[in-house]
Amino acid sequence: MKKKPLILVTNDDGISAPGIRTLISVMKEIGEVVVVAPDSPQSATGHAITINNTLYLNKVNIDGELEQEYSCSGTPVDCVKFAVNEILKRKPDLCVSGINHGSNSSINVIYSGTMSAAVEAGIEGIPAIGFSLLDYDWNADFEPTRNFIQKIALEVLEQGLPEGVILNVNFPKLKANDIKGIKVCRQAKAMWVEKFDKRKTPHNRDYYWLTGEFVNLDKGEDTDEWALKNGYISLVPVQFDLTAHHAIQNLNTWKLNE
Amino acid sequence: MKKKPLILVTNDDGISAPGIRTLISVMKEIGEVVVVAPDSPQSATGHAITINNTLYLNKVNIDGELEQEYSCSGTPVDCVKFAVNEILKRKPDLCVSGINHGSNSSINVIYSGTMSAAVEAGIEGIPAIGFSLLDYDWNADFEPTRNFIQKIALEVLEQGLPEGVILNVNFPKLKANDIKGIKVCRQAKAMWVEKFDKRKTPHNRDYYWLTGEFVNLDKGEDTDEWALKNGYISLVPVQFDLTAHHAIQNLNTWKLNE
Repeated sequence: MKKKPLILVTNDDGISAPGIRTLISVMKEIGEVVVVAPDSPQSATGHAITINNTLYLNKVNIDGELEQEYSCSGTPVDCVKFAVNEILKRKPDLCVSGINHGSNSSINVIYSGTMSAAVEAGIEGIPAIGFSLLDYDWNADFEPTRNFIQKIALEVLEQGLPEGVILNVNFPKLKANDIKGIKVCRQAKAMWVEKFDKRKTPHNRDYYWLTGEFVNLDKGEDTDEWALKNGYISLVPVQFDLTAHHAIQNLNTWKLNE
Repeated sequence: MKKKPLILVTNDDGISAPGIRTLISVMKEIGEVVVVAPDSPQSATGHAITINNTLYLNKVNIDGELEQEYSCSGTPVDCVKFAVNEILKRKPDLCVSGINHGSNSSINVIYSGTMSAAVEAGIEGIPAIGFSLLDYDWNADFEPTRNFIQKIALEVLEQGLPEGVILNVNFPKLKANDIKGIKVCRQAKAMWVEKFDKRKTPHNRDYYWLTGEFVNLDKGEDTDEWALKNGYISLVPVQFDLTAHHAIQNLNTWKLNE
């Protein structure tokens, strides 16, 4: 019998969020699980790391079943760095991040702490997947995602991933029977149009809340937004080589050295 | 005579850093400048945005010459969102971010607040450039960068940038005469190997500092790391479509829906 795979689990909603507890319980069915996750919510922290502040790491035991579970005072990316460089004795076979409470499709991938943790694992050479459910509710129903998550995780463990590629998986808010399947997609060209909600403090000073509206102008049927709107789970391969290779030839025609 | 271009300036080292003051003074020679930058250092904040906390915006006047200068309590990306949605009357013709005190070449692009601000401007459809100098010193000598920055900024104002492309420009720590020129590059495949420096608080609790060593295993002579080591200014076109398009065909052969 093959050795159980070692699976690192993290997220950005914090270690006690129902999303990560579901992900942990699915991963326990297929491997040895180590959890290193933020001690408090870290949504929209992107690929931030903590270099100008101290970090704390605590051994915890949230549901009484795991031997190796740690909460960290830093960002999701800090958690992955801690796991790989300080906690784990060997490189994990898989890193899963999530299940995020809310979408990380389209441009959200770039703001997402959940996806940045998965990307960091990818940079470290670990096959990695971020999972997100299109439901921001703390009490969202994660049950319909279980079988699909297991299937995708087992496939990645079996096949591996191309070098420098991470998976971004988003689930529509649907019952399991209403989900049409998994669709490999590209990131839709969408963006947020922000509105700042201006208020007064009790001491009469102006302050703001960042709010915004998601605008998708990309009509492509090969996008994650299309898939999710049409009842599919979207699976986008993501890379951390940010080079716009297609632009290099054109830039080389510029007269920058004359 | 053509109207002066409107130029938004930001950074991640904070509004009073010598790097941004140099960038402002170069931009004042070519356009109307508006500054919106963090009120404190925000290095390595990546693409973080502030959604669970309040934001403050203050009109300031650091060097007594600019009419429109604002400090913001948020991240570099928050600054760009504030500028575009709350402060500026029209879309700027250019956004420049930096000059960063320290390198943003190779994988650093993904952790960098300076580059994330430029990327955010790119998402908003604004031609954008991040500038960084390979010198972390607060009193680094930014003078050798001036002529090159002006040249690149004027070229972008003249030619525009392809849709979805931002420029990541890094300067070697050299005197102007020793700089060999500007080289269009790809992002080197390099990474940080972290070491956590473990200490005790005065109250006997363990805490950590994140430290690390930069490791470049990419020997390509078309990379930013090669250019910088060989006396060139590196210019990498960066994109925010993170889709690994080359991996889609392979993933479509997976039996995810059986």
